[in-house]
Amino acid sequence: MKVKIPRGTQDILPDQVKTWQFIEEKIRLLMEKYRYEEIRTPIFEHTEVFARGVGDTTDIVQKEMYSFQDRGGRDLTLRPEGTASVVRSFVENKLFGAPNQPLKLFYIGPMFRYERPQSGRYRQFVQFGVEVLGSSDPAIDVEVITLAMNIYKATGLKNVKLVINSLGDRESRMAHRQALVDHFRPNIHEFCTDCQKRLDTNPLRILDCKVDRNHPLMSSAPSILDYLSDFSKSYFEKVCKYLDDLHIPYTIDPTLVRGLDYYNHTTFEIMSSNEGFGAITSLCGGGRYNGLVEQFGGPETPGIGFALSIERLIAALEAEGIQLDSEDHLDVYIVALGDEARDLSVVLLDEMRSAGLSADRDYVGRKLKGQLKAADRQQANYVVIIGEDEIARRKAVVKNMETSNQTEVDLQHLIDYLKETVSN
Amino acid sequence: MKVKIPRGTQDILPDQVKTWQFIEEKIRLLMEKYRYEEIRTPIFEHTEVFARGVGDTTDIVQKEMYSFQDRGGRDLTLRPEGTASVVRSFVENKLFGAPNQPLKLFYIGPMFRYERPQSGRYRQFVQFGVEVLGSSDPAIDVEVITLAMNIYKATGLKNVKLVINSLGDRESRMAHRQALVDHFRPNIHEFCTDCQKRLDTNPLRILDCKVDRNHPLMSSAPSILDYLSDFSKSYFEKVCKYLDDLHIPYTIDPTLVRGLDYYNHTTFEIMSSNEGFGAITSLCGGGRYNGLVEQFGGPETPGIGFALSIERLIAALEAEGIQLDSEDHLDVYIVALGDEARDLSVVLLDEMRSAGLSADRDYVGRKLKGQLKAADRQQANYVVIIGEDEIARRKAVVKNMETSNQTEVDLQHLIDYLKETVSN
Repeated sequence: MKVKIPRGTQDILPDQVKTWQFIEEKIRLLMEKYRYEEIRTPIFEHTEVFARGVGDTTDIVQKEMYSFQDRGGRDLTLRPEGTASVVRSFVENKLFGAPNQPLKLFYIGPMFRYERPQSGRYRQFVQFGVEVLGSSDPAIDVEVITLAMNIYKATGLKNVKLVINSLGDRESRMAHRQALVDHFRPNIHEFCTDCQKRLDTNPLRILDCKVDRNHPLMSSAPSILDYLSDFSKSYFEKVCKYLDDLHIPYTIDPTLVRGLDYYNHTTFEIMSSNEGFGAITSLCGGGRYNGLVEQFGGPETPGIGFALSIERLIAALEAEGIQLDSEDHLDVYIVALGDEARDLSVVLLDEMRSAGLSADRDYVGRKLKGQLKAADRQQANYVVIIGEDEIARRKAVVKNMETSNQTEVDLQHLIDYLKETVSN
Repeated sequence: MKVKIPRGTQDILPDQVKTWQFIEEKIRLLMEKYRYEEIRTPIFEHTEVFARGVGDTTDIVQKEMYSFQDRGGRDLTLRPEGTASVVRSFVENKLFGAPNQPLKLFYIGPMFRYERPQSGRYRQFVQFGVEVLGSSDPAIDVEVITLAMNIYKATGLKNVKLVINSLGDRESRMAHRQALVDHFRPNIHEFCTDCQKRLDTNPLRILDCKVDRNHPLMSSAPSILDYLSDFSKSYFEKVCKYLDDLHIPYTIDPTLVRGLDYYNHTTFEIMSSNEGFGAITSLCGGGRYNGLVEQFGGPETPGIGFALSIERLIAALEAEGIQLDSEDHLDVYIVALGDEARDLSVVLLDEMRSAGLSADRDYVGRKLKGQLKAADRQQANYVVIIGEDEIARRKAVVKNMETSNQTEVDLQHLIDYLKETVSN
């Protein structure tokens, strides 16, 4: 009887993991250039972190969380996203007191949402995200957006488009909220029951509804951009100016409200504009969340961030037919024939690796031909052959697999010879 | 009101994460040299995976698992260790059919055990581990042990010792089991209730008991080494010979049985031998688990592996007073004075990063002095200063922070100049 992997999760096998490692390496290099530092928070948090941080009225908190009690009766939840945990950690560890302000953080790791699995959507998925805490300069909004765009660029993805919006400050949102209620109230009975609830709890969420997206009142709904306060308006104009200065094309979409409660001012999404990419086109989403740190009991601290799913990035790369380079050559494969040679290869292998070479040998008792085949499969650059005859003469045959040239080398000079030869 | 991190877990903050990144990089390089490929399995599995793979009678399965039901009523458990998941994946994905045999795999990621938190022991901890599936050559046992030893060596840890044992094959263990039952049965009432149960379910576990460890019958218990079959004995002798060939010192400890049910033949532990290291001295444990793949419904496949906790490795490094190198210089910090210069710095910053430089600027409105201080804190090698006067003349001042030399450069040549200068 076999046990299967849990529904909505996946194994990343050695062949596939190379793509992940490639992307992670690109991200690591960008983080160094942009000076973002990594933070790692636990896989689970007290459930309250997400109720408070993501928002009680969101789909995530109401329907999609993996929540459970531990053996001590604590209410815990596998993190469904990264921002709430980072802000919890920021407050708990008093990072607002650090001299380097703003704090520019990134995280990468698994997140969990109990959704219906479909192409490109998993119940466990990996998010990379950044959070900048402590700056309300529009230039940092643009740095964060640019960074997100450059991750796609670094992996070779071409067909992406940037969509931005402003949700304004509290004053703007209160005015807009009233306008939304006035707009939808007379016909709210034509909407789904979720939307009927949203009208009172969080009317902005109606614009995000997947059920009623085609209702005619949706497209005629009042735009947040018509309700921005003077401050919010000039903030947003500055963000747009900087994007123009950097020649980054973007579309302004006033219906972009994001599925989380904590956003204000700048919000953005990066979508795949590739035709073959299927229903879910959003690759990355983020925005400003001034006020969230205070909700966790910290001092007034502005914040902005984004998150993107590595699974969707890989799907987008595949949709564009982009092959990531994964050359994976082995320096030396030892072909050993006979017990004495096999025993000796234990020591030689260790010496080669200690000398900084990648090296391997046979562990399943293959004959000469089988060992040479294995060396080929591993794309060995050199093969060291040791048989009974070589053992007797304290020699080894070194074969260059590209040129097929063979040289006989004294065993005692073998490691030095390889160090010299392989590095050339 | 503040929400705290769950008991027994920790945030790894930017200052600490550098140690983790350093260790992970060392591991990555060793994996390349030794030709182990990464595999990533989900954070949770069906509970049955661990009941079957780790063993129903172990403390882990009986007392320490984070188990819960998802919204679909599935019994899931956060993985308490890595081997069972890897073997589940090996069978489910039919990796036994791959041409490259044995399969040499590694994993690194969080594991979860509900234990009493204490120094160096967390409820969420990170394990690095390797699994080799498909070889029963004693040379691979030694490769795996050497690899584990070399991870400590690569990080600079000095005071470690290797302890090995053999649990033999099925024949050996049956004979030893009977001897254990005969040895303990007459006085079993002097032992804890757990041990009384173990006498019938799994008498080997008695040797692992933390409660009765000082009972006189413990030290006089029959040794597995006296019950090894001829095959098991010669297998173990070969392992010891190879360790001798590699000049790796080791101690044979016949009471080393490991806390998991699946081991046979070679088992080993690496301990800290540093005096100041406290109660938990075990850093790494592993062994052979022939038969485990069959338990998961796969074909007969030998296996061997180990796992080590990164938290304990870091604790051991700290106990030895080893400082990991974490030089972290910034290439360029832009000091911009006045609105126009600040706006311009958005574009310059982007150009510097696109040119491959690490670069940063102020985002909290610091004055000249504050910006220079921030540049210092970030260990900037160069500072680019742009004030109103420079803007008017389309110039920038480039200051080498080591020599304090200043040069004025045309803005249009600034990026080329920095690319040239910084790389030297």
